[in-house]
Amino acid sequence: MNSIDGIIALLSKLPGIGKKSAGRLAYHILESDRSFARLLSEQLASLHDSIRHCSMCGSWTESEPCPICADSTRDTALLCVVERSQDVRVIEESREFRGRFHVLGGLIAPLEGINPDDLAIGSLVRRVRQEHIAEVILALNPTVEGDTTSLYIQKMLQNSPVTITRLASGLPVGGDLEYADRLTLSRSFRGRTKMGA
Amino acid sequence: MNSIDGIIALLSKLPGIGKKSAGRLAYHILESDRSFARLLSEQLASLHDSIRHCSMCGSWTESEPCPICADSTRDTALLCVVERSQDVRVIEESREFRGRFHVLGGLIAPLEGINPDDLAIGSLVRRVRQEHIAEVILALNPTVEGDTTSLYIQKMLQNSPVTITRLASGLPVGGDLEYADRLTLSRSFRGRTKMGA
Repeated sequence: MNSIDGIIALLSKLPGIGKKSAGRLAYHILESDRSFARLLSEQLASLHDSIRHCSMCGSWTESEPCPICADSTRDTALLCVVERSQDVRVIEESREFRGRFHVLGGLIAPLEGINPDDLAIGSLVRRVRQEHIAEVILALNPTVEGDTTSLYIQKMLQNSPVTITRLASGLPVGGDLEYADRLTLSRSFRGRTKMGA
Repeated sequence: MNSIDGIIALLSKLPGIGKKSAGRLAYHILESDRSFARLLSEQLASLHDSIRHCSMCGSWTESEPCPICADSTRDTALLCVVERSQDVRVIEESREFRGRFHVLGGLIAPLEGINPDDLAIGSLVRRVRQEHIAEVILALNPTVEGDTTSLYIQKMLQNSPVTITRLASGLPVGGDLEYADRLTLSRSFRGRTKMGA
């Protein structure tokens, strides 16, 4: 296998990149200035070394704690629970939310062997108690797994003096939070509903 | 700018990769085993050093001449002219053609400032004379630029004792050779027509 084939094989392992797309990317890189390949190579090499999970919220970060957890201007009474680290980025870009985050690291999916114990739910319950959280906003995908996880978290927090809300179903059912546009996401935040009401 | 933002910025410069796709790719790499990022990094770093243009046909290669030009079992009387190096790969995968290649490095496009002198047309004319080529197959995209270039090459070779053909219009007009499926490409080879007939 030569270098181009090697690059194409690696790139086609990425999500949404088929063999033909990988070919286009590889030749594009080859025909671009070599500084582009060098930069991308360097950043990939250092990626895992420079990034770790924030000890507070669990999102990917270069500093400890992450810039959001360290930001004293954020509303510490508001906690937004998300499935993955990239959801934090999406929500931050909507500029709708000024509290802090808690990353679960997945959703409950018994068929795939993902149980509550595999997720950062225990640490969520501890944070809610220790950090005097007034409101927990569940910003999980509106899917079966997202709803199951929301209900489970609601049950785990029912003895805590905290309001639990979830995002309004402005998000299309069955969709992925990552693909929501800014406006839809803003509306979901504004129309968030109290759970168990 | 942190590491993830850096990777996303670089990846979104690739063709067909928008900002959201770049985000998906970056997080996928981050959440994959770190050996994947390391491998991709290494291959990117060495790509430009290990790959050069074949001195005979002009396609990207790691050896000199390229494996196709060096292959003595190929029909040296047949020469297939393509726009870009990746077209060689597409045609090789169709397994329809057993001759050799000549890569032009582009198509004539005066509005974009690409003139015949910028392409490997002079060397094509020399090869046709020196290598006793019997047939030149023009496998250029069926676009205005492809047709212009085909006609120009036909004119340049009109005093050479060589048959000039071009791929049958099994390819959809205005389309891109790279996206042709194997069957369409096979049919285009079999139904190739003689130019100026």
